[in-house]
Order: sequence, then C-alpha cells, then structure tokens
Amino acid sequence: MTDIEKLMKDVAEGKVSPDAAVLKLKKAPFEDLGFAKPDLHRALRQGVPEVIYGAGKNAAQIDAIADRLIENGAETVLITRIDSTREAELRIPHRYFVDARIAIAGAMPEIRTEGVILIATGGTSDIPVAEEAAVTAEALGNRVNRLYDVGVAGLHRLLSHDEDIMNARVIIVVAGMEGALASVVGGLADAPVIAVPTSVGYGASFGGLSALLSMLNSCASGVSVVNIDNGFGAGYMASMINHLGEKA
Amino acid sequence: MTDIEKLMKDVAEGKVSPDAAVLKLKKAPFEDLGFAKPDLHRALRQGVPEVIYGAGKNAAQIDAIADRLIENGAETVLITRIDSTREAELRIPHRYFVDARIAIAGAMPEIRTEGVILIATGGTSDIPVAEEAAVTAEALGNRVNRLYDVGVAGLHRLLSHDEDIMNARVIIVVAGMEGALASVVGGLADAPVIAVPTSVGYGASFGGLSALLSMLNSCASGVSVVNIDNGFGAGYMASMINHLGEKA
Amino acid sequence: MTDIEKLMKDVAEGKVSPDAAVLKLKKAPFEDLGFAKPDLHRALRQGVPEVIYGAGKNAAQIDAIADRLIENGAETVLITRIDSTREAELRIPHRYFVDARIAIAGAMPEIRTEGVILIATGGTSDIPVAEEAAVTAEALGNRVNRLYDVGVAGLHRLLSHDEDIMNARVIIVVAGMEGALASVVGGLADAPVIAVPTSVGYGASFGGLSALLSMLNSCASGVSVVNIDNGFGAGYMASMINHLGEKA
Amino acid sequence: MTDIEKLMKDVAEGKVSPDAAVLKLKKAPFEDLGFAKPDLHRALRQGVPEVIYGAGKNAAQIDAIADRLIENGAETVLITRIDSTREAELRIPHRYFVDARIAIAGAMPEIRTEGVILIATGGTSDIPVAEEAAVTAEALGNRVNRLYDVGVAGLHRLLSHDEDIMNARVIIVVAGMEGALASVVGGLADAPVIAVPTSVGYGASFGGLSALLSMLNSCASGVSVVNIDNGFGAGYMASMINHLGEKA
Amino acid sequence: MTDIEKLMKDVAEGKVSPDAAVLKLKKAPFEDLGFAKPDLHRALRQGVPEVIYGAGKNAAQIDAIADRLIENGAETVLITRIDSTREAELRIPHRYFVDARIAIAGAMPEIRTEGVILIATGGTSDIPVAEEAAVTAEALGNRVNRLYDVGVAGLHRLLSHDEDIMNARVIIVVAGMEGALASVVGGLADAPVIAVPTSVGYGASFGGLSALLSMLNSCASGVSVVNIDNGFGAGYMASMINHLGEKA
Amino acid sequence: MTDIEKLMKDVAEGKVSPDAAVLKLKKAPFEDLGFAKPDLHRALRQGVPEVIYGAGKNAAQIDAIADRLIENGAETVLITRIDSTREAELRIPHRYFVDARIAIAGAMPEIRTEGVILIATGGTSDIPVAEEAAVTAEALGNRVNRLYDVGVAGLHRLLSHDEDIMNARVIIVVAGMEGALASVVGGLADAPVIAVPTSVGYGASFGGLSALLSMLNSCASGVSVVNIDNGFGAGYMASMINHLGEKA
Amino acid sequence: MTDIEKLMKDVAEGKVSPDAAVLKLKKAPFEDLGFAKPDLHRALRQGVPEVIYGAGKNAAQIDAIADRLIENGAETVLITRIDSTREAELRIPHRYFVDARIAIAGAMPEIRTEGVILIATGGTSDIPVAEEAAVTAEALGNRVNRLYDVGVAGLHRLLSHDEDIMNARVIIVVAGMEGALASVVGGLADAPVIAVPTSVGYGASFGGLSALLSMLNSCASGVSVVNIDNGFGAGYMASMINHLGEKA
Amino acid sequence: MTDIEKLMKDVAEGKVSPDAAVLKLKKAPFEDLGFAKPDLHRALRQGVPEVIYGAGKNAAQIDAIADRLIENGAETVLITRIDSTREAELRIPHRYFVDARIAIAGAMPEIRTEGVILIATGGTSDIPVAEEAAVTAEALGNRVNRLYDVGVAGLHRLLSHDEDIMNARVIIVVAGMEGALASVVGGLADAPVIAVPTSVGYGASFGGLSALLSMLNSCASGVSVVNIDNGFGAGYMASMINHLGEKA
Repeated sequence: MTDIEKLMKDVAEGKVSPDAAVLKLKKAPFEDLGFAKPDLHRALRQGVPEVIYGAGKNAAQIDAIADRLIENGAETVLITRIDSTREAELRIPHRYFVDARIAIAGAMPEIRTEGVILIATGGTSDIPVAEEAAVTAEALGNRVNRLYDVGVAGLHRLLSHDEDIMNARVIIVVAGMEGALASVVGGLADAPVIAVPTSVGYGASFGGLSALLSMLNSCASGVSVVNIDNGFGAGYMASMINHLGEKA
Repeated sequence: MTDIEKLMKDVAEGKVSPDAAVLKLKKAPFEDLGFAKPDLHRALRQGVPEVIYGAGKNAAQIDAIADRLIENGAETVLITRIDSTREAELRIPHRYFVDARIAIAGAMPEIRTEGVILIATGGTSDIPVAEEAAVTAEALGNRVNRLYDVGVAGLHRLLSHDEDIMNARVIIVVAGMEGALASVVGGLADAPVIAVPTSVGYGASFGGLSALLSMLNSCASGVSVVNIDNGFGAGYMASMINHLGEKA
Repeated sequence: MTDIEKLMKDVAEGKVSPDAAVLKLKKAPFEDLGFAKPDLHRALRQGVPEVIYGAGKNAAQIDAIADRLIENGAETVLITRIDSTREAELRIPHRYFVDARIAIAGAMPEIRTEGVILIATGGTSDIPVAEEAAVTAEALGNRVNRLYDVGVAGLHRLLSHDEDIMNARVIIVVAGMEGALASVVGGLADAPVIAVPTSVGYGASFGGLSALLSMLNSCASGVSVVNIDNGFGAGYMASMINHLGEKA
Repeated sequence: MTDIEKLMKDVAEGKVSPDAAVLKLKKAPFEDLGFAKPDLHRALRQGVPEVIYGAGKNAAQIDAIADRLIENGAETVLITRIDSTREAELRIPHRYFVDARIAIAGAMPEIRTEGVILIATGGTSDIPVAEEAAVTAEALGNRVNRLYDVGVAGLHRLLSHDEDIMNARVIIVVAGMEGALASVVGGLADAPVIAVPTSVGYGASFGGLSALLSMLNSCASGVSVVNIDNGFGAGYMASMINHLGEKA
Repeated sequence: MTDIEKLMKDVAEGKVSPDAAVLKLKKAPFEDLGFAKPDLHRALRQGVPEVIYGAGKNAAQIDAIADRLIENGAETVLITRIDSTREAELRIPHRYFVDARIAIAGAMPEIRTEGVILIATGGTSDIPVAEEAAVTAEALGNRVNRLYDVGVAGLHRLLSHDEDIMNARVIIVVAGMEGALASVVGGLADAPVIAVPTSVGYGASFGGLSALLSMLNSCASGVSVVNIDNGFGAGYMASMINHLGEKA
Repeated sequence: MTDIEKLMKDVAEGKVSPDAAVLKLKKAPFEDLGFAKPDLHRALRQGVPEVIYGAGKNAAQIDAIADRLIENGAETVLITRIDSTREAELRIPHRYFVDARIAIAGAMPEIRTEGVILIATGGTSDIPVAEEAAVTAEALGNRVNRLYDVGVAGLHRLLSHDEDIMNARVIIVVAGMEGALASVVGGLADAPVIAVPTSVGYGASFGGLSALLSMLNSCASGVSVVNIDNGFGAGYMASMINHLGEKA
Repeated sequence: MTDIEKLMKDVAEGKVSPDAAVLKLKKAPFEDLGFAKPDLHRALRQGVPEVIYGAGKNAAQIDAIADRLIENGAETVLITRIDSTREAELRIPHRYFVDARIAIAGAMPEIRTEGVILIATGGTSDIPVAEEAAVTAEALGNRVNRLYDVGVAGLHRLLSHDEDIMNARVIIVVAGMEGALASVVGGLADAPVIAVPTSVGYGASFGGLSALLSMLNSCASGVSVVNIDNGFGAGYMASMINHLGEKA
Repeated sequence: MTDIEKLMKDVAEGKVSPDAAVLKLKKAPFEDLGFAKPDLHRALRQGVPEVIYGAGKNAAQIDAIADRLIENGAETVLITRIDSTREAELRIPHRYFVDARIAIAGAMPEIRTEGVILIATGGTSDIPVAEEAAVTAEALGNRVNRLYDVGVAGLHRLLSHDEDIMNARVIIVVAGMEGALASVVGGLADAPVIAVPTSVGYGASFGGLSALLSMLNSCASGVSVVNIDNGFGAGYMASMINHLGEKA
C-alpha cells in the first residue's frame, strides 16, 4: 500500500481529517532554510547519505544544512567541492579528503558490497577528479581499486593490469586531453564504464571539451559519460550500479 | 588460470612448440575480410550477441560479416543503423524492426533477467531513437517497458506513471530539445538513468547539442549520458547494468 | 477550494470511496494513444486551444490526436509546422495557412481582447516565421497588426510607423541576420517585446545564431527571446501577455 | 495630437519661430556628459525610474549621471551591477542590496499593482541573479514572491508550492546547469514565464550556455528567455507585463 | 539648408499647411508592397543604384519591386543572389551574369572614376564570390581588375603581379580555407583591403569560419572583413571607397 | 621605373656589381634585433608612422625597437596596447594616452586632410576601444569627431547628431553587446563604415562574439568589420580611406 | 649559384639585357588560364608530380589544366576529389581509383624508396579517406601497407600487427568518432605518425570535430594532424618524410 | 627475434620457468610511484631521452620521477612546462631554459645529425613557444636554426631568408593570430612543415583557435599541425623526422 493509499484510507476511516490530509500531502519532506531546502528524507528514499554540493555555499550555510540533516537522522553527510580554506571554517565535526575536496560529517559507512569499482586515470593531473569519485564511492559503501597514470600512450602500463580490469564490477575512467582511455578500457572490459572527462590539458583541449566529445563518440560499447570534472557524479552512478549487482 | 598462463605451461610441458605459441599469441580471434576484421570471439568474451554497425556498409559487406560470425557460432547478430532500402538488399535471413532501423539475424535471445528496463521519451519524435534502445535491449535478453511522450511540459503524464519509474532496475531517458526529462526522472528514481539526447528539434537545439549539454549538467545524481541519437549505446549499457543486477 | 481539497472532503463525507479517490488522482487528464499522450484538459487548464506540434508526425497520427481532442471538447485545434504535402493528407476538416504552415481544425476563436499585438519583420524572408506568430496569435483570439520589411538599414520605414509601435500592447520582432531590429524597437516602445531570431541569412549568420545572440544581448530593456524560427512560441507568449492586459 | 503636430501648428500660428522649431526637434531629451548621454525624459516616456548600468563605470561617473537625473526630476534611480567596493565610494545617498549588487538612490517606489511576480531558483547559487531580478521588480513597484532552491531533481519541493505558481501573474525562473526548471514551471503555470539562465555550474555548463540553450528549446509554451545572469532584464520585463495586467 | 529647415520655413510662410507638413514628414520615401517596402529615394540619397537582395524572393516579387523602382526613376536595378532558374522566370528586361548570380535591369552605369578596384582570389573555387563583387563594383561605375588563383601556396603567382597590387586604389581579397591571402596582400599593398572569406573548403574550414577568423586576425594593417561569401558587400564597400578617392 | 628595373640598368651599365646587386636585393629594409625585425622603411613605403604592437613586449624591447626606428628617420612612432605600468618603464621620450593605451614617441603628425573621421560608440564602456581608434587616426594625421554613448536603445541620441553622420567622410562604429549600432549608422550614412565589435558585455556576448557576428551580418551596405576590440585596426583603415579621399 | 645570382652575372656580362632580365624575373613559372594559374615548374621545384585539386572544377577545366601540365613535361598528374560522374567526363587519358576518388593521368611513378608507409584505419567507414592517402602516397613513389578496421575498441586486432607498426618508416592513422587510434599507435610506434580525423560518425562527432580535437590533444609524442578527411595531405606529407629517410 | 619469441624459446628450453615467464610478461617496464608510473625503458624503446610533462606536478613529484629515471640509466631527462617558481624548488641538478620553460637534468645530448631544423615565428610574442620547440629539438640531438619575427605582413623579412628555408630538412612554423605563415612557408619549402598555432592574439583569435583552423586548412602541401602552444610536440616530431633523414 502506498502512502497516498494509506492516507486516503485514514481519511475515509476518520482517523485523519480532510484538512490534515491536505496539509500532510502539501508538507514536503524537506525544511526551508530560506537559502536552501535540504531534503530530509532522501537518505530513506534513496538509501544513500545526504550530499551537500559545497560550491557557492559558505561555511555557515553548509553547517546549517548539515545540522538539520543530522538532526533528521542522516548518519553520513557528504560535502563536495569544498576547498581547504572553507573547510577550515566548518564548525561541524568532519573528516577532510584534501585531494578529493570532500568533507564527510558523521560516520563513514561500512562497505556493503563485494563488487569492486575500478578507477583508472590517464595521467597524474587527473588524480583530483579521480579521488572525488573514489571518496564518493567509498562513502557510499563501495570497495575502490585505484589505477592511476595508465594513459594510452604507454599501453603496457594499462595492459599489465588486465586482471584489475577483468575483476571490476564497474569501472570509472578519468582522463583529460584526448580521452582515449575510455574507449580502450571499454574495449577490454566486460563491466559498464563511466567516463569522466577532465579539464586537464591546454590549447585545443578547450577546458575538457576535447575529452568530453571523444568519450561521447567512443566506439566501445558499454561506455557512458558524465560532466567534465564530475568525479562525484561518476562515483555516485558507479555505486548505484555496484549495489544493484549486490541486491539480486 | 588465464589463457596465457595455460599456454606458457603447455610450452614448458612440450605440448606446444615455441613457434606455435608465438603464432597462437599473434593470431587474433578475428578474421580479416579486408574491409573489416569481425571479432569472432566477442560473443564468448562479452557474453552478448555480435553487433554490426550498419552505417557506411553496403548490404554485401554486411552479409559477408554476418555470415562469418554465424559460421563461428554467433547465435544472434544485431545489425544497427540500417535503413529499409539497404535492409531490402540483405541476403541473410533476418527480422527487421523498421522504427529502430535494426535487423536481427539468427535466433532472438530469451529474456534472461527479472529486471525491467524502462525507456521514456519526451515526445513522439524521439520514438525512433527509443526503439533502437528498446530493440537492442530486448535482443540482449531484457524485459523492456516503453513509456513514450511524457515530456516535462505536461508533468502529470510522467507522474501518473510513478510506479513504472519505481519498479525499473535501469532507466533510459530519450529526449531532444531541452532534455529536461533526464533530470526530472533522475530525481524521481532510485535506479541508474542513462540519458540519450536526440537531434529532434530546430534552431538553437543545434542538432541535439542543447539536449546533450542539458543532460551532462543534470543536477540529479545517478545520470550518465551517451552520444546524441545513440539508442544502441544506451540499450547496450542498460543491458550490461541490468544483467549485473541478476548475477550476484 | 482546490480539486484536491474537494476530493478529500468527498472522501471524508463518504461521497467518494478511498479507492476511487486514488484512482481519480492517478488517472491523468490525458489519453494514451501509444505514440502520443494528448492532454485532454489543457484547454480548460490553460484557457487556450490545444496545439499539435506537427513536425515529425504523419497525417494519420495528427488526425488521431485531433479527433480525440475534439471528442473531448476542444473547440479549436492548432496544428503547427505542417507543410503543404502532409496537410493535403489530413482527413480532419481544417483551414490551412500556407505561409504560416499552420492548419486549424474546428472553429476560429473570436477576438477576445482590445489589445493589439504588433508583429514586425526585418525583411521579406522573415515573413513565414512572422506569419506563424500572427496566425497563432489570431487563433488564440488576438488582434494582430503586421508591419513587414522594416529592417534597421532603412530606419525611416520603421520610424514612419511610430504610432503602430506606440499603440501596441505587445510587440513581436522577427529578424534574421544581425537581429538589430529588436533593440531598436525595444528602445522606441513602452510595450514588452518578444524577439524571434530567424535562420534567414548566410555565412556568419550560422543558421540564426547571430540574430539569437544579438537579441539576447539587447541593450534595450523589456526584450526577451524565443528559439530561432519559433514563431509559434512568440505568438503564444504574446497572447498570454495580451490577455493578461485584458483580465484585470 | 502628437508633439510634432502641435509644434507644426505653433509654427503656423507664429507662436514658435521656424528656427526655434528646428532647434526643438533637434534638441534631444538627454544631456551630454561627454562619457555618457543620460536620458532625462525616460521616466516620463516609459513610466519607470531611470536605470544606470553600473558595470564599467566608476563611482564618480555614476554620481554625475545620478545627480543630473535627479535634478531633472527622477524620483528613483536604480544602479545595477555595482559591487560593494565601488558602492562604498558612491557620494550620492542610496540604499544598497548586496546580494543583488544594486544601489537605489531616491525614494523606493510604492507597490502599484495587485499582481504578484514569482521568482523561483533551481539552487542556492542562483540566488544573486534572482535577487537582481527581485530588487529590480520591487523598485519598479511590484510585489515579489521568492521561491528559492526548488530545482527539478527534488520535484516535491516545487510541487508543494503549486499555489504560489498558480497565483502568480508573471513568473521568473532563474537556473543554471541544465535549466530544466523553466520547462517544468512553464508546464505547470498559466502565467508567462521569463527564464534567466545563470552561469552557475562547471565543465559542460560552459558559463551558462547549457542552461541558455535548454531554456530556448523549452517544450513548454509561454516561456521566453533573457541573457545569461540578466536578472535585471527579467525583473524589468516582468514588471512591464505585470503592470500591463493592472492597466486595463 | 536641410529639408526639414526648408519645410519649417514653408510652414511659417504659409506655403505649406501644418497638416500637409506633418503628412510630408510622415510619408516615407518608400512604397509599401505588403511583402516589401522598397526604398524609392535611395538612388538619390546614396548616389547609387537600388539593390534587390534576391535570396528568398520569388520572380514575381522581384519583378514587382523592380517595376516600382524604375517607375520612380531608378536607372539601374541590381538583383543579387538570383540563380539561373528564378532568373529565367523574371519578366523585367535584364542582363544576367551567371557566375556572379546577378541580374541587372536598366542601363549599365558608366565608369565614373579613374581608380581601379583589384579583386584577387586564392583559388578557382572562389571565383563565383569574386564575380559577385566584380559585377557589383562595375554596376556601381568602377573599373575592375581581376586577379584569380593567386593563393599563397604559390607565392610567385602573386608576386609577379606586384604592379597590379601597387596600382589599385582599393583591393578585394576573396579566399576560403586558411584565408592567408588577405594578410599577404595587406602587407604588400598601400591600399585599403576588403577581405571576403568564402565557404570553399571542407572539414575544419567549417563553412568559411576558418577563413573568416583568419582574416579578422590579420596581422597586416588596413584590412577589414565582410561576411562569408558576401561578394556584394565587398564590391559595394570598395565602390564607396573608390568614389571617395575621386570626389576630393 | 621600379627599383628593380633601375637596379638592373645599373648592373648593365656597370654602376653596380652583380654581387652588390644580389646583396642589395637580399638585404631587406629591416634590421634584425634578434627578438624582432623592425621594418625601417615602412614609413617611406606606406606613408605612415611606424607602429609597435606593445602587447607581449617588455619596455626594454619597445625602447630598442623605437630607438632603431627613430635612428632610421621615423618621425613618429606609435606604441599600442601598452598599459600604464609598462609605459612608466619606457625610457624613450613619449606622450601617453591612458584611455587608448597608446604611447607616441616623436612629433605628433599634422592634420593632413579636410575629411573628418566620426567615431561613435554604443555605450560608455566602449570608450577605451574608441579612443584607441581615435588616437591612432589622429596620429596618422586625421581630424576626429567623437560621438560617444549613442546606442540604439535610445535612438534619439543618435538621430539628433544626423549632421555629424552626414558630414563624416569615414565612420567608425564601436559597440559591444548586440552591435546593432553599426547597421543603424550604416543605413543612415553615405560614408563607408568600419565596425569594431567590443568585448564589453556578459553572458551570451561571449567576449564580443555576439557583436562580431551581428556586425558581419549587417543588412546595411557599406559596412566592414575588424577584430574584436581592434581600435587600432579601425583607426588605421579609416585613415587610409580618408587620405584616399584627399589624394585625388 | 642561385638562379638570381646567375641572372645578375648574365646581365653584367651583357648576355642578357636589363629589360629581358626584368621580364624573366617577372615571368612566373606558371601559365594563366584565366580561371587557374597552373604551376608548370612545380614538378622540378618539389620533385613530385603536379596535383590538381578537383573539387569545384568541371571536367573541361581539369582537362585544360592537365593538358598544359603534360605539355610542359609533367609525367604524372594527380587529380584529387573527383567523383565518378565528373571522372566519366574527363577527356584526358587516365586511371581512376574509385574509393580514393583520385584520377591519375600519365605514367604511374616507380617506387623510389625502401621505406614503408603504414596506413591504419579505425573502421570500415574510414577506408575512402585512407585510400586517398594510400593512392597519393603510391603515386608519389612509396610502398604502402594497408591495415584497416583496427579501432581501439578491439585492441587485439591492432596488437596482433605490432610488426607492421614497428617496420613502418611513417604511419598514417585515419579515424573518425573519438580518434583514439592515433594516440594508441603513437604510443606503440617509433615512427612519426600523421593523424587524419574523418567526418565518419554522428551526433557529437560534429562532422569530425571530435576526432580532430582528440588527435590534436594526443598524449603520445610524435603525432601531428591534418584537416578532417584530408587523405591527400597526409599521403603527401608522409611521402615527403619517407623520401627524406631515403635521401641521406 | 623479438623479445616474446626469445622468451618462448627460453621457456621451451627450460631456462625460464612458466611462472617466471608470465611474471616477466606481466611486469611492465615501468615503476609505480603511486601518483605516476614513469616509463623506465622508453629511452631504449624509442631512442630518446625521457620526458616529464611538468604541468600539474609539484617539484617533489618531478624530483622523484627524475631520480628513478636516472637510476634506471636515463642520461638526459627533459622537464617541460615548468615555470621559474617551481623550477627553483627542484632538488635534482639541472639546467633551466627560462623562455622555453624547460629544465634538463643529466647530460645535454650531442648533436647526432647533419640536418637542420628551422624554427620560424610570425612575431615576437610567439618566441616562448618556439623556444620550447627549439630546446626540445636540441635536447634530442638536433641542430636548430631560429628565424623569429618573419610574419607575412612584412613578406620581405621572410623572403630575404630563402636560403634558410631551402637548406632546412624540417621546418617548424610557430604563429598566432591568422597563422598564415605556415601556408606561405609551406609553399616556399620542399621540407615537411610542422605548424604550431599559438594562443597569442586577442578577440577573434579565441585563444589560438583562429591560427589552428587556419593551419589545418593550409592550401600548401606538406603541412601538418600540432596542438595550440605545443612547442614540445613540434620539436619532438621534427626531431623524429630529422633523424629519419639521417638513418638511411
């Protein structure tokens, strides 16, 4: 029985007045802080910790939102895109991952799945985006295997890790410049590949556009793409898929 | 034991001569037709039917490739991006899906999973791309639920199908123009969403660029994107994820 | 009292069973034709005729949708983006506006307002888009004043119609190439201006991009923009504003 | 009788000499400050306060222009795009709205209309642009209803405010990233919607281009668009439309 | 004494009634054909023949406009962008220049200046655009010197014509692909250079964008640019400059 | 007789040895400073002062080049794109124009022509680019008439200066945002118009791209365009044309 | 002794008159056919056959140019970008390569070098561009090794040809879509790689832009790029490099 | 005999155990430093010094990688894209080239070839990119001839160096703005030309895009292109080609 069906039944049975029912339907599961409307029920609804997108919010705003989330039962709050300066101003207790620019308040979730998410980067400069993906995936309860600096110009570095590729349930490929790593990994792997173009590069990389287009045009099957530098999005999507693998 | 380990062992045990081993390592699991090098072992390697990308190949070339694949044991051969004119010239027995522009030679695979892939479109014009995704997913052994013409400008059409959204294991959203459907569905669903921008639209849709950018920038978590009009890629990726759900 | 409040009350009073209420809430005011889900209540909800976007639909599909709309009480059905070839195949009785590429089934609405919508074009080639706007606005019950070929390179043509500009309640400016007309009219007028860039031009007009950017950057206040060649959108928006003027 | 007709009559009647008439026709209703030619009669001509676009002007220039406008009878002068550093240097008495980056010299106009302008944002980061629109609209004599952080990824936050949407005479939607909010609100509302893309986002948002294209391609009717981050333009246009509603 | 001064004086002296003066001021020097408002006085105002931009007009419309212009005293009417199919349908007597896609009705003007306009092209494919410029310039009474296929990859072809370059009063450079010819000629010449990018090329020429950008970035002084393929615009501008040379 | 003809004759007459002739032909009229090869004869060849493009050169390099030019007889050296910091480090005596970011070493040339170059800007923010054009034109011996802040949104400001427009021999239009001023002035004037798009604006002005495209697509005849913010190029071109007017 | 030195000497020694010397200097080594200025000495100057770029030239023009080249001693004339329709109209004897769209008049040059040019393609659809490169290289006297359909999604196809890669003196990589093949081959090879992006693909391949950007951003050293679909340019450049290898 | 053939033989002959062989095949010739996987055998494999791309790495990371490379026998380590601030923090002994932003640790290689690489720039501002190419080529054992500031607007500067052009075995052309120098040099030279667009310029140079497109569209044969500002890539490619010339 859905919530709404139950509510209707309660109204019919006189347990709930019509006015209260309307109110209840109207009252959204979020609280209005004026500048933000944090979703207090998302953890329940989606089975994952609440996430605060830190960019464009000051420390006080982040604290306020995190407080309300924790008061409402969130066990873990992930704060993304927060640099070390603002992080230093946070009042709420947290753990900070400097490469990933992520702060985590509350308990770190246990690893809830056997499947491994492999995160590969083309170069050293792609590591911050890869770490955003890695810490996100870990905070969502996944095992992560990091495989950094395996760009296609030195193919043997990648091929020598073929078992890592074969053993992964989901793969995240993080690469800037020509973004070719996604296609090569996509061709080698049986697992779904989530490609993250990065803004690493110069000149005709056009802030990640080159890698983005390259990944969208991948000739390998089983590759999909998220926004430039969107490590969080890739980690979140990979976690969703990985837990799906566990469920059945 | 991997193939290469076994081969080494055979060499050491004298079962295979060094020259034969080198030959065997070199001899790739594909056949060279001159104009194409079809991969004869992919079905085994990836657990899926072989796919022929039909665009830019004539009927004779497609027939030749399909023949060789079937001779090598492929049970199902999917031929994508083939319009009705070329399809009429195919010599190989097949079944044709006109909306999807897909021909399938060999047996249609059984449905091998409980999970359902939901395919939603923003409008009527997005249906051909959606059908490419749907037929691909079906040919890969998935149940598909079609939910067409539920664009965000008439939100009640989408909201009235909330159960379809909640029951899907994977969701494919196909939309042109502003591509907003991906974000809205992504916000409603717990399942991973694969977004397919379409070239439907005119003016500032710039051949699907508007929908592509919109989907890449989705504020909903759990959304990734494939190339404009790439129904096949979405169907393939969704199938990969869906079967992952089944495995564990 | 809103519909939902009324429904709750009916449930509480036993006039409607809980199950029927749920059903009623779920049953969306549209009908599912498979390829399309026409909105049968929009005329009531928005006070305007139903619109069928004709591009990418065949005559049979359009007929089917129009039939259902009329059966549900729509008095006027506007079919846009339908060229003369497809129009000739329509079975449903209608009137065709060839320049505007619009067919109208059902009664032509009466003019329901005193306000005049002025539609100005930069050149002769912009007329089809202007006519799409004009016929749309007329079908929505507005008076339209056409002022064609008054581009800024011959400013006296525009200035000699200053009274038309001053007397309009809403103005639609349709122009390709450099799109300067929107700014000039915006500076002269007190009325809101809706600018429609057209794909008229060549070379660096890039299919209307030049006019689009120009209009978005207008230094005149009170100018907003719709998609390239979107005469319908401009006519619809102008009608909304014009009737607003009437209401109070 | 228009001004020019009256002038002609005066000349014929000898009340005005031909030379004086020529002078009068030539003498524009603005004063030349060298670096700027402020329009001293606009308040009369357009029925609204004078606006100074602050970007690219120093405090002394702004003071000079504002002085002259007030000397000529302007009751309210709106200074837009002025950051707090330059604002601190203004000599002219004013009130400063820091989020909106707007300074207002002179009296704040009374609210002159019953209609409400609803301003909705997708996220917290869009608030500065929304405030530019809100303060502009208020300075032009409108009631404003703020509805912030109601992005489409959490649709229930928006849907729980359906009455705000239904009760607005004009709606401004401010959103970056994928800009989907404009289409969703456009589909729910009967009022004209002015969409403001913002440069909020990263990667493939390309400084607001993604939201801009998305909004231009909106599948909802009754949506038009202004420049990226152009809160002022949206507020001004909304006010024009809102007062139109009052006039009749 | 300007027209308006004279009119004022006439009114004061009773020679013209106030009403007639207003009428005269209002009556624009053009006639309204509905679909077009041809400028009947431009020949007088700008000292050049009237031009009809043929693209997007049918033969009947062109005939109607040309008729009215000739009735009003135009001696030469230039019809541009008219292909041979539509040209064959013209009723008005004319001479057709097939390469230039220009038809000329009325008398061909005499050459009214000593100065020579040099028109150089990079390749053979640029000739149609060059001819549009050449015929336009000739119809406006200029001597034209054609120097075709002198692209920079074979510099000696250009350098062997140094006297042509030195003797020209104005130079038009027509080039597609990399558009380098404009800079090289600009460096060699003392005369103003008008550069016309053409859409000749393929791949990364992007329909003339490459040549356009190249010409805009010319490191040579004295180079300005018109739209891609805009031979008419270049010929017109060159004629204006050339006659200026004559005047003093 | 050209230089080369004279040289040949000298060789034949034994006045110049073959080796000396070859040397003379090879020896270019510039000196190699290693980092730069200033053109010492350009003043003679093109009849104008030497110009040093200051961007990307340090003060010492500029001094070195200017020294050599003056030693070789240059009377005036124009140094463009030099900000006040570097200008303060120049050792060579000069006069600095801060708005135009131009330094001039040597004598200011006399005005050598009757013709007037009119320079109009759309707004106050366009003035620096306009001043670069103005100071360049003045340094090249032209009379300049400045007409600033006459954008098309307040058309009467422009129209009240119709005599300035009519009296100019060449017109430079400097405008950012939608760049419509070029078309309006081009329609009003009989003189050639050189349009300079500026990077003034925000959002969809894309750093001047909007104004650039708008100007390239101008529907007015007699308009050509230079690079974004290229005031120098416009001033130089205008001077070339203006002196042409004087020559004949 | 250069030509010019010799000429000077001849003048000094009275063997050549000054006038004749000037004439000789001026007389370029090309003939003016009006629409084209074929370079009659290029074969001597660059050691290669003359090339006629066929696009945009009709059969008669091509015949005329080829005739003159052969009369002047060219032994081989390469005609590129000529489709089968125009090829059928050629009067000059020739051999046609339909995939490459190249016609060759005159003798086919002998292979003049030991080095091998390897040409690899990502897919079957890239073959026409690869053939343009191959036939060009062969016509310029090179051995060519074709390796088609070895895209990175099936890496084993490429790796099984490692000896072909190691043995090539120059490599041409032809690929559309994501263009990743260039980086992978560049990482494997010691030879210089010339990358040719192709317009093969759809959606976000944007006519080859994706592959172009990808190749320009290659993380492998020793990769340079030519225009989209420019097989000829790649073949020509590769031949230049290959013969360089032979020379020393 | 290839490595793999030798290994097989060793296995067959019992010299190497199967397990050791597998290990050996798996063990890649690089070391894993966590953040980077430097290729320790590349010097052997490609016959060139190891290169560290400095951008995005801190001094400690560079030191660590360089140390490991030198320990493994690298005689020369090239560190590119390292500005003077980070260079000052390097612990490893090195020589710094400030213009080129390159540090070289270890011995400078001897010049190993007779051939000369000519490096030409359009202007003074292009020198840093040219120096990156020059120092790279020198570090790879090549003679380099620098020819700076020879842009096409002063063609005599370039033509007076015709012997430098004729004597070069490979040519690198470095130019921003319109990039025309590549085509002009390509037309004059018999040697392969590698074109490097630079981000020098402003406005419509769009960060080097204009020069890039121009060079890709070069009408001269024998021109290929590397990424914007990629001096290293050009120097590396030129060295490869130059040594090829030496080999045979």
